[in-house]
Amino acid sequence: MLNYKIYSAGGFVESAAVLEVRNPFDHSLIATTCLADEVILNKAIIAAQAVRQEMAVLPSYKRFEILRYISDQLKVNRQRLAEVLAAESAKPLRYALAEIDRSAQTFLIAAEEAKRVPKEYMSLDWTPNGTGKEGIVKYFPIGLVAGIAPFNFPMNLAVHKIAPAIASGCPIILKPASSTPLSTLELAKIIDTTELPKGAVSVLPMDRKTGNQLVTDERFALLSFTGSPVVGWEMKKQAGRKKVVLELGGNAGVIVAASADLEKTLQKSIMGAFSYSGQICIHAQRFFVHESLFKAFVEGMKAAAEKLRSGNPLLADTEISSMIDEENAKRVESWIHEAVEQGARLICGGKRQATFVEPTILVNTKDSMKVYAEEVFGPVITIEPYNSIEEAVKLANNTRFGLQCGVFTNLVSELDYCFMHLEVGGVIHNDVPTIRFDQMPYGGIKDSGLGREGVRYAMHDMLEPRILVK
Amino acid sequence: MLNYKIYSAGGFVESAAVLEVRNPFDHSLIATTCLADEVILNKAIIAAQAVRQEMAVLPSYKRFEILRYISDQLKVNRQRLAEVLAAESAKPLRYALAEIDRSAQTFLIAAEEAKRVPKEYMSLDWTPNGTGKEGIVKYFPIGLVAGIAPFNFPMNLAVHKIAPAIASGCPIILKPASSTPLSTLELAKIIDTTELPKGAVSVLPMDRKTGNQLVTDERFALLSFTGSPVVGWEMKKQAGRKKVVLELGGNAGVIVAASADLEKTLQKSIMGAFSYSGQICIHAQRFFVHESLFKAFVEGMKAAAEKLRSGNPLLADTEISSMIDEENAKRVESWIHEAVEQGARLICGGKRQATFVEPTILVNTKDSMKVYAEEVFGPVITIEPYNSIEEAVKLANNTRFGLQCGVFTNLVSELDYCFMHLEVGGVIHNDVPTIRFDQMPYGGIKDSGLGREGVRYAMHDMLEPRILVK
Amino acid sequence: MLNYKIYSAGGFVESAAVLEVRNPFDHSLIATTCLADEVILNKAIIAAQAVRQEMAVLPSYKRFEILRYISDQLKVNRQRLAEVLAAESAKPLRYALAEIDRSAQTFLIAAEEAKRVPKEYMSLDWTPNGTGKEGIVKYFPIGLVAGIAPFNFPMNLAVHKIAPAIASGCPIILKPASSTPLSTLELAKIIDTTELPKGAVSVLPMDRKTGNQLVTDERFALLSFTGSPVVGWEMKKQAGRKKVVLELGGNAGVIVAASADLEKTLQKSIMGAFSYSGQICIHAQRFFVHESLFKAFVEGMKAAAEKLRSGNPLLADTEISSMIDEENAKRVESWIHEAVEQGARLICGGKRQATFVEPTILVNTKDSMKVYAEEVFGPVITIEPYNSIEEAVKLANNTRFGLQCGVFTNLVSELDYCFMHLEVGGVIHNDVPTIRFDQMPYGGIKDSGLGREGVRYAMHDMLEPRILVK
Amino acid sequence: MLNYKIYSAGGFVESAAVLEVRNPFDHSLIATTCLADEVILNKAIIAAQAVRQEMAVLPSYKRFEILRYISDQLKVNRQRLAEVLAAESAKPLRYALAEIDRSAQTFLIAAEEAKRVPKEYMSLDWTPNGTGKEGIVKYFPIGLVAGIAPFNFPMNLAVHKIAPAIASGCPIILKPASSTPLSTLELAKIIDTTELPKGAVSVLPMDRKTGNQLVTDERFALLSFTGSPVVGWEMKKQAGRKKVVLELGGNAGVIVAASADLEKTLQKSIMGAFSYSGQICIHAQRFFVHESLFKAFVEGMKAAAEKLRSGNPLLADTEISSMIDEENAKRVESWIHEAVEQGARLICGGKRQATFVEPTILVNTKDSMKVYAEEVFGPVITIEPYNSIEEAVKLANNTRFGLQCGVFTNLVSELDYCFMHLEVGGVIHNDVPTIRFDQMPYGGIKDSGLGREGVRYAMHDMLEPRILVK
Repeated sequence: MLNYKIYSAGGFVESAAVLEVRNPFDHSLIATTCLADEVILNKAIIAAQAVRQEMAVLPSYKRFEILRYISDQLKVNRQRLAEVLAAESAKPLRYALAEIDRSAQTFLIAAEEAKRVPKEYMSLDWTPNGTGKEGIVKYFPIGLVAGIAPFNFPMNLAVHKIAPAIASGCPIILKPASSTPLSTLELAKIIDTTELPKGAVSVLPMDRKTGNQLVTDERFALLSFTGSPVVGWEMKKQAGRKKVVLELGGNAGVIVAASADLEKTLQKSIMGAFSYSGQICIHAQRFFVHESLFKAFVEGMKAAAEKLRSGNPLLADTEISSMIDEENAKRVESWIHEAVEQGARLICGGKRQATFVEPTILVNTKDSMKVYAEEVFGPVITIEPYNSIEEAVKLANNTRFGLQCGVFTNLVSELDYCFMHLEVGGVIHNDVPTIRFDQMPYGGIKDSGLGREGVRYAMHDMLEPRILVK
Repeated sequence: MLNYKIYSAGGFVESAAVLEVRNPFDHSLIATTCLADEVILNKAIIAAQAVRQEMAVLPSYKRFEILRYISDQLKVNRQRLAEVLAAESAKPLRYALAEIDRSAQTFLIAAEEAKRVPKEYMSLDWTPNGTGKEGIVKYFPIGLVAGIAPFNFPMNLAVHKIAPAIASGCPIILKPASSTPLSTLELAKIIDTTELPKGAVSVLPMDRKTGNQLVTDERFALLSFTGSPVVGWEMKKQAGRKKVVLELGGNAGVIVAASADLEKTLQKSIMGAFSYSGQICIHAQRFFVHESLFKAFVEGMKAAAEKLRSGNPLLADTEISSMIDEENAKRVESWIHEAVEQGARLICGGKRQATFVEPTILVNTKDSMKVYAEEVFGPVITIEPYNSIEEAVKLANNTRFGLQCGVFTNLVSELDYCFMHLEVGGVIHNDVPTIRFDQMPYGGIKDSGLGREGVRYAMHDMLEPRILVK
Repeated sequence: MLNYKIYSAGGFVESAAVLEVRNPFDHSLIATTCLADEVILNKAIIAAQAVRQEMAVLPSYKRFEILRYISDQLKVNRQRLAEVLAAESAKPLRYALAEIDRSAQTFLIAAEEAKRVPKEYMSLDWTPNGTGKEGIVKYFPIGLVAGIAPFNFPMNLAVHKIAPAIASGCPIILKPASSTPLSTLELAKIIDTTELPKGAVSVLPMDRKTGNQLVTDERFALLSFTGSPVVGWEMKKQAGRKKVVLELGGNAGVIVAASADLEKTLQKSIMGAFSYSGQICIHAQRFFVHESLFKAFVEGMKAAAEKLRSGNPLLADTEISSMIDEENAKRVESWIHEAVEQGARLICGGKRQATFVEPTILVNTKDSMKVYAEEVFGPVITIEPYNSIEEAVKLANNTRFGLQCGVFTNLVSELDYCFMHLEVGGVIHNDVPTIRFDQMPYGGIKDSGLGREGVRYAMHDMLEPRILVK
Repeated sequence: MLNYKIYSAGGFVESAAVLEVRNPFDHSLIATTCLADEVILNKAIIAAQAVRQEMAVLPSYKRFEILRYISDQLKVNRQRLAEVLAAESAKPLRYALAEIDRSAQTFLIAAEEAKRVPKEYMSLDWTPNGTGKEGIVKYFPIGLVAGIAPFNFPMNLAVHKIAPAIASGCPIILKPASSTPLSTLELAKIIDTTELPKGAVSVLPMDRKTGNQLVTDERFALLSFTGSPVVGWEMKKQAGRKKVVLELGGNAGVIVAASADLEKTLQKSIMGAFSYSGQICIHAQRFFVHESLFKAFVEGMKAAAEKLRSGNPLLADTEISSMIDEENAKRVESWIHEAVEQGARLICGGKRQATFVEPTILVNTKDSMKVYAEEVFGPVITIEPYNSIEEAVKLANNTRFGLQCGVFTNLVSELDYCFMHLEVGGVIHNDVPTIRFDQMPYGGIKDSGLGREGVRYAMHDMLEPRILVK
């Protein structure tokens, strides 16, 4: 049986609290690792503090080389890493491979951005007393970063915290999800072979109680959390003096206008709706389709959903597999039942076997149903018709979340209206909201989060300006 | 009789070469001024050189105050200045007033940009030998600027050279057109009352021979010319070591797609086609209309053209008046005749009385006709049908010019295609190409020019970077 | 007796809770106003929410005009406003006039920045799946802003919240300090005459309990607080989901190196040490002087301190006047006593009469004394010798605060070392830390705050990015 | 005997005009290649034009991959390429290796910048008629680039034209120096194995007459020339409508102030003075040393110059070798004689053997001597004393050139003064002017050139803005 040590203070260590990691698809034991206790965590914090200055003065070419090396290693080990990832998360291999590729790309971007940490130079002679004066603004690493990553992109969402931290010169302690710690521990092995100061990065699975120290401990200068809204907002309250970045979820909308190309729209929509069983922050959950296309769209989605190949995530042609655990699968099932009981009509799917939930399409839904109002984080979508673009935007905005929204249209006036009025962090034209490029600013408004990630944007929060007035 | 002295080396002076300024509409004598001779020009150059250092170290708040004061004075004297401008250029008063407003705005923008001269601060530790090194880039005024302005916007096109020069800290000698020197000399009177070092700005009408020294004299660091293509490109060859910016003309296209709103398109098109008798660099000259709208568009334009109120430029409701001189009016008339002889069909207009040319619409034109291939710089347009957006773009690009192009469409795909493929400096959505905002980058490619104006962009060419490696 | 109504929801209103505003110098009653109750506050919030959309779509030229108008009105009413400010705060008139000037400048900067709200446009084709894609990022107003301002710059620190809010398109409710509400209410009168939507700005003195709703009410999207560290950090914990910007205090250091020009250093230091009785966030509190200059510096400061003209703040030649209230004066007095008891040596000052505390200089201080470790916010400084620049920086950093630090030196190596290693938001070369230009990024690290103000920087926190992926 | 074909229109071809390439050190024949005739050049131009559109739409990830691949190949073949370069140019191997490294770095920077081509997004609602309007500015490749590179950095100065051209999407035809074409032809072999469209890059040695077509042919949109001032400025006159960038030479100054660290200054100065026998555009030619250090500096330089190991460029420990040809060596010899005849004092060196000129130091020089007034481009320096920093700057500025200047000082006031007043493109602190980082803006003012190189800056001139007003 494989055993993964955890990565603390520059070394691989063990604790007494063994953690079994199982494949959600067949519940087989993949490997064991352990949970960091307070002693291990404290050592990691002390080690991170100790290398803070060394990290801060690392020349940019060194940060570049380290980050590019990690990027290259991810590519070299692509297949093996994707298999680990697929096994622990039940993410179909094709998507697991894509995630490793994206992680390599994210490290590459960070490598390049390490050389481009912002600097400003400004006139201060806007008033007589500033005559001859100028300002030079340099950005310094903020200090120790606490990162908490979720199960659904166990590699890339951890990378979106680790890579910018290294690029910024900040030590980081990252807590992966307890269900999916293996990819990140594989990454730790790569990081350990670089020239980074020992202790600059620690990867520590923890139980919730120990992990909460990442939130409350004042030695951290920044908490970067990706996960559920309820947990995230509670953390903000407990975070003390540190800065907080929250990447939470949503119930993303998709608008399909009359001028949309139906074939292409269906192709993209099926991916946004059901890839990784909808366990994606920007899962395309609520579709609003112009009434002229409504019937065709619902039929098209039904046909496509029923054709999705389900099964073992480690097989190359699997398109949809299990959810992360039975608890969540049951929750999703119950939400579907609630909706149907309250009047929704089931177009397809709706059934659960163990951790697997069928791709499910609902129409006639209401904004009071959980499948509409909450983040379903499962393979369930709602489709409703609309009449005017103003109505479509109103429907899409009718939620406490605001992450991203897809808009399929070929009219300039409609696209402009959507960009101006959709209350979200991102509007995606002619595609589902389930799109994210790793260099772009990514994050939500309203209950969907606070701040932005995307390498350069994540770095912004890890840096502190200091002006020299001269 | 009014007499305007010319503004050289910080004082108002006279030469023996008297210049009569007449109203092109009725040929009445408005005022006299004079042409600078070589002695006067040389004094202006020496004075400009002498204040170069003083200009360079002017704190930005001083530049701001001076430029804002000029802006305010233009607004205070709006009506009077517009009347001078209308009289010397036969520009209808409504447009003359708009030009004074734009000039005030241009000075205001320059005031603000004077405080925002670019500065850069960059890492140089991208390689081991750069460890610990940084670069600080500051932009210094390039030196003495030579500006040559045309008759058609006698105030604002001079302002687009003078205002950025002051904002950048460069002395400037400006040559207005001999037909329209009065507005610029009025501006000189305002400038003379500011705290600018004497000699920082000179405004000198000159004959072509004397004026050519602005092109050839190596004491100028930059030549900024707005005028005709033939003259401009010849100047570039004679310019020696100095930088050259050329704002030349064109035969701007307009694409009217099937999805355009016909009413609004006609309203805007009539302005682009005939305002100031087409004597505008970005005059909407060649219309390409989707075949589904062609007939309605031609009829709509004809109806609107025939309703334009022509007459005395100084009357408030005049919409179209004389051309700048009879020579040009005759040229335009002959081009119309050439076109008709070669098979073009005259929809309306076509006749000339003295300096006045009727608003003229031609269809069935070919790219070999002067009204199509050359810059007509008169109240003449061509309208041709097209079938696909690719064809429309090919037609619009079928010219040696490339300044701006208007595109009326409501399709995202068409607008994107146009922006990607129109070979111009500016694509104007749902409007004629005859639009310019004074802060935007403005200028042409191909034979239409070299470089960009628009305050911040004009300043870029008046500034020279110097890096401090530290 | 003058009575000021308070400004809520676009109108001037009264409550039952009368607030007397007295001159701290002679305790005379200047005027009465009142404290907003929950009903008034709630109306203000509702009105602010109601105009949110109207504010968001205000074209930039409108924001510019409104902000410039306010700036101009402050200049026109300069003398009168300075007298109100001097009377309520006991700030000597010369400094009160300077504050009005700075407020006018701050509004002017905001006017200009309203036209320069950041926008981004980026390639997304860094990976094959992004081929042909681009991102457009536009910044939208974040929503309703809660501003809490302190007594020490009753006008300009309120303006640093109000002006960026208007420039960003955010409604704002501002709570001035209860001791100094009059300047801000005068500003409200000016704002009321602009074209801003009614309710966009409210100015509401409140007791602490009512005011705390600005912190806890989830209808606010941002809390911007300037005040004491203890209060600020507590607010962060209670702030719920909103963003928080904290501009807190410090015990700023000044380093005087051997190469400093003693005369100029003394001149600047006396201002940084005692202007407005040290009641300034960036009060120069702890001086570290190279041992070669130590004796001369202490003597020079003593001589200068004893020459400061104290008295009535409304007299033109008064240089130092009363502290804000007797409670604070007594606190400062007791801190001086504590220091002397623990071994500090009193060079001059040390005595209190009612609200007046003499300019006080202490040497032989230790980092355990309150006058060294805490923010004294009174006319008290410590002076200690140092030997090497590394030691000086270590001494200056030996505090939980980190706002700004002054460095007097002519050595490149020393200045570079200080900029790299001083743990502060700003390093001021050849001047005291008590310098702030209103356009520069301003704010502290460690316990001195979170985030930055300075118009453009304050606007950054009031804006939310939204990307269009196309 | 090795024979190199030349690279035209995507293939390696030959002409009848054989070019022998000899090692300047021992005149041995290294290889033969040939000169392109007009037919070959014309084919290259046509092929370049043909792929213009294909180049323009290459996604940035493709440009990145191609450029990074070339960078990697340069590193892989580092030793072999350096030997070719050393042999054709007589550049000591240690410097040849450094040049290959820099070329790899330059391609890497270009790879990264290809993803960061500038884009702008701006408000246009600064006036009422702009309400609701915005501008989007995208930069498009300018078209076909003509590059002319000199012998002294046969690889890296060609790379500074080729790499930005590829990054910008412009086809380029590069003419290497006839004495040193081999390195660039080696580079062509690498480029030929990439996915670049065939014809996008051609490398064509040419005689002057054929090469002049790069200057005059209107099919080129940009001429980028690095070489001698006389040739460069003449080209500008003949360049027709195309943009021109000139990177010419100078007689760079070095200021050694009283506060300089003598040991470090000598170490750096000896490199700046004699590396590659002074055949560097930013060769440190004129030293101005504070009188307090003058004697020690002259003695130190003499001692160091006499210790330089001269000889075969291909030996690892050679520090100085031959000049490029006997003609230049004789010219330098004659300039030394002229100086001595006119009163200069020879401190060391002064003698010539065939193509080798000894490291030569002169004092008592005057600004009328060629070794002072002209670009010596040989291993000759002048050293003169000065009294005040103002005098030093005046001396350094006393020339028609203005490329870079080194300043050794530890005083802030002196460094600030130098940065403000030295009329150059770059001021190098505590180092010789002979420093260039490949990402920084590099270029001269006055007779030293027009425009800037440095990847991002070179790209700026290869791109043309197009605004979409919407």
